[in-house]
Amino acid sequence: MTTPLKGACIVGQSGGPTSVINASLYGVVKTALDSPHITQVLGAEHGIRGVLDDRLMILDREDPDNLALLPMTPSSALGSVRYKIADPDADDTDYRRILEIFQKYNVRYFFYIGGNDSMDTCAKISRYMAKAGYDCRVLGVPKTIDNDLWGTDHCPGYGSAAKYIATTLMEVYLDATVYDTGMITVVEIMGRNAGWLTAAAGLASARGMGPDLICLPEVDFDLDRFLGDVERIYQQKGKVLVAVSEGVHDKTGKLISEYGSDLSSSVDAFGHAQLGGLAATLVAMIKERIPTKLRGLELSLMQRCAAHCASRADVDEAFLAGRTAVEQAIAGQTGFMVAFQRPETGDYVCQTKLVPLNQTANAERKVPLDWITPDGYGVTQAFIDYAAPLVEGEPERVMDRGLPRFCRLEGFFAE
Amino acid sequence: MTTPLKGACIVGQSGGPTSVINASLYGVVKTALDSPHITQVLGAEHGIRGVLDDRLMILDREDPDNLALLPMTPSSALGSVRYKIADPDADDTDYRRILEIFQKYNVRYFFYIGGNDSMDTCAKISRYMAKAGYDCRVLGVPKTIDNDLWGTDHCPGYGSAAKYIATTLMEVYLDATVYDTGMITVVEIMGRNAGWLTAAAGLASARGMGPDLICLPEVDFDLDRFLGDVERIYQQKGKVLVAVSEGVHDKTGKLISEYGSDLSSSVDAFGHAQLGGLAATLVAMIKERIPTKLRGLELSLMQRCAAHCASRADVDEAFLAGRTAVEQAIAGQTGFMVAFQRPETGDYVCQTKLVPLNQTANAERKVPLDWITPDGYGVTQAFIDYAAPLVEGEPERVMDRGLPRFCRLEGFFAE
Repeated sequence: MTTPLKGACIVGQSGGPTSVINASLYGVVKTALDSPHITQVLGAEHGIRGVLDDRLMILDREDPDNLALLPMTPSSALGSVRYKIADPDADDTDYRRILEIFQKYNVRYFFYIGGNDSMDTCAKISRYMAKAGYDCRVLGVPKTIDNDLWGTDHCPGYGSAAKYIATTLMEVYLDATVYDTGMITVVEIMGRNAGWLTAAAGLASARGMGPDLICLPEVDFDLDRFLGDVERIYQQKGKVLVAVSEGVHDKTGKLISEYGSDLSSSVDAFGHAQLGGLAATLVAMIKERIPTKLRGLELSLMQRCAAHCASRADVDEAFLAGRTAVEQAIAGQTGFMVAFQRPETGDYVCQTKLVPLNQTANAERKVPLDWITPDGYGVTQAFIDYAAPLVEGEPERVMDRGLPRFCRLEGFFAE
Repeated sequence: MTTPLKGACIVGQSGGPTSVINASLYGVVKTALDSPHITQVLGAEHGIRGVLDDRLMILDREDPDNLALLPMTPSSALGSVRYKIADPDADDTDYRRILEIFQKYNVRYFFYIGGNDSMDTCAKISRYMAKAGYDCRVLGVPKTIDNDLWGTDHCPGYGSAAKYIATTLMEVYLDATVYDTGMITVVEIMGRNAGWLTAAAGLASARGMGPDLICLPEVDFDLDRFLGDVERIYQQKGKVLVAVSEGVHDKTGKLISEYGSDLSSSVDAFGHAQLGGLAATLVAMIKERIPTKLRGLELSLMQRCAAHCASRADVDEAFLAGRTAVEQAIAGQTGFMVAFQRPETGDYVCQTKLVPLNQTANAERKVPLDWITPDGYGVTQAFIDYAAPLVEGEPERVMDRGLPRFCRLEGFFAE
């Protein structure tokens, strides 16, 4: 085992928000604050931009009770960024600046919480520091509601989004079937390339209160067949509930949301344009064939920030991922992302492992085709078994007169 | 005090779903089942239609443990209806049928849970039965997320919708401000004529995590002024969050959502029509003036069925309203709606009273103008004080492997 390095750490958050990315942040910060090897805990404002701009918050100075609110606070308390860092072999300007900042604050640990792009940033920084001979341990902590990171059983953020989606679909099912008249409801769910989020609607269907049709981007979307199936179910039941991924596309790869412009009904009887996103497009198309009440819903930002519906498993695991990153870095590891695995048989347990950053960056994991039912409209028991433990449990929430109390950092900047 | 009548009761649900209309149903059913005066508890399927069609569920035969799930089950477990009953003086066909059913099952109590139209139905049935000399006690139980019923301090259903809206706005605020780049977010909230729901966004603003601009239908919407104010805030902060009622209109009464058709940007660069509801319309209009990232959100059905975010006060009060209806009917009252009041001074307590049905039916209660800030973009402390106790408390939820367990009635039909 390598001797622990003594020095400061920087932690940053990057990419789109999730309900639990701050739980990972708390896992990093709490473990780092408690470590005798880490001399100062710096939070980079807006991810790598905060390092480049020397905007670093001294988290040691924050009120511990306030920091303890982080696990149930959605979005990124440090601020996020979508800045794409250059390849160091092509342009090392940013890296020289990062090294300068690392040296200025004697930073020996760098933790970056994010998705594919963030792991790529981590990998490049790790490689550059090694080449520059600067001793610094770089660990990535995964987060994404999309669950599409390679090398991990699942990603922190997915369980809570899945729980919100399944819960909301159950509630919408009860709402949308309440009248004795016909109703067709289309719910649009995030996920451009991978259908994990939309598949979570299957958890609602497995309880008998979910969509009739679940359409994932892993399966080519055949519009005529889809419209025929909606019509068939409508004639049987009078109600149809559809969950559809924003990324569904036809066999040529054209997004169905782009079909909107071809529609004769894109302007309604009052001359109003009728289309928005995919849900609205599909609703307009169904309306041309089936004269009934229709409604399109988008779960939009809510599915990635509804911390009030977070899963306890997800909150705990997100914290674990952050804590593990710090522990492993102190133990001498660098150039890895913390990942999850579960036992091949027996009860679900979330175990951690390390995956080389250069293997996980920029790879994408989709829903396995054999977890999708043969008709392409649902998920199999294998998916249900996979997802069920991820939505388990209710975290303890700190409430203040009926509304959540969230963490807002004071922001004591270094220098 | 009048002698209690001995006979069956019918309970029905009508109008749009809420998170707690089933809590009122449970208040009626539990109290009726426990009463020695009520011989049978019948649930009308799809409201008054179930009476007309003789589709009555014997609720005495349902599993009590299943019924106990009702308070946290959103939507209407008996099914709902939007059937508009005729004026008995013009056409008494429906009333003769209702009387026939009442006589058939010896129905002496009729409880109807709903909004304005439902109270109107109640009033007409009550009047007809009195005229026909049939002794039956008719009580209305209010429900509506819109909070626009006349004669009551607030309506069951509003507190939970307000809590969902305020919670979601706080979460969306954290999400939509996370990047170091500009962002304008417009959230569309239900409420055609009354702004109570949109005003609830002010609870989030009062916590420092809410909309910059809150637009209610009580105030004429001036598009040019609005766009100027969005631009001003954007230049100051780089982020703007707007909560807007679907019912906002200009001084001529024209809905702003109908402005969409005049927009040059209603078709984007790819030829896609860009408009959906009001949020999308406003986003397209802002986009013409401010080149930044924009997003339109609709809280849609979620705001009326998100039982997972219900307020304990609302659940308890909804139950209380149902229970009170039964108790008052047994005590001899008829032709009233149960209503709420609070003490003029001191701590909030929810007290019940009775309001004559014919006074409450078809009247509409809006947000008082002096609860709206002078600039028309927010709510005053008087509104916050009014709404705060209604969103208080977390109800106990029955969970099943991470998802809510909801009540589904078995449905044992009479005859």
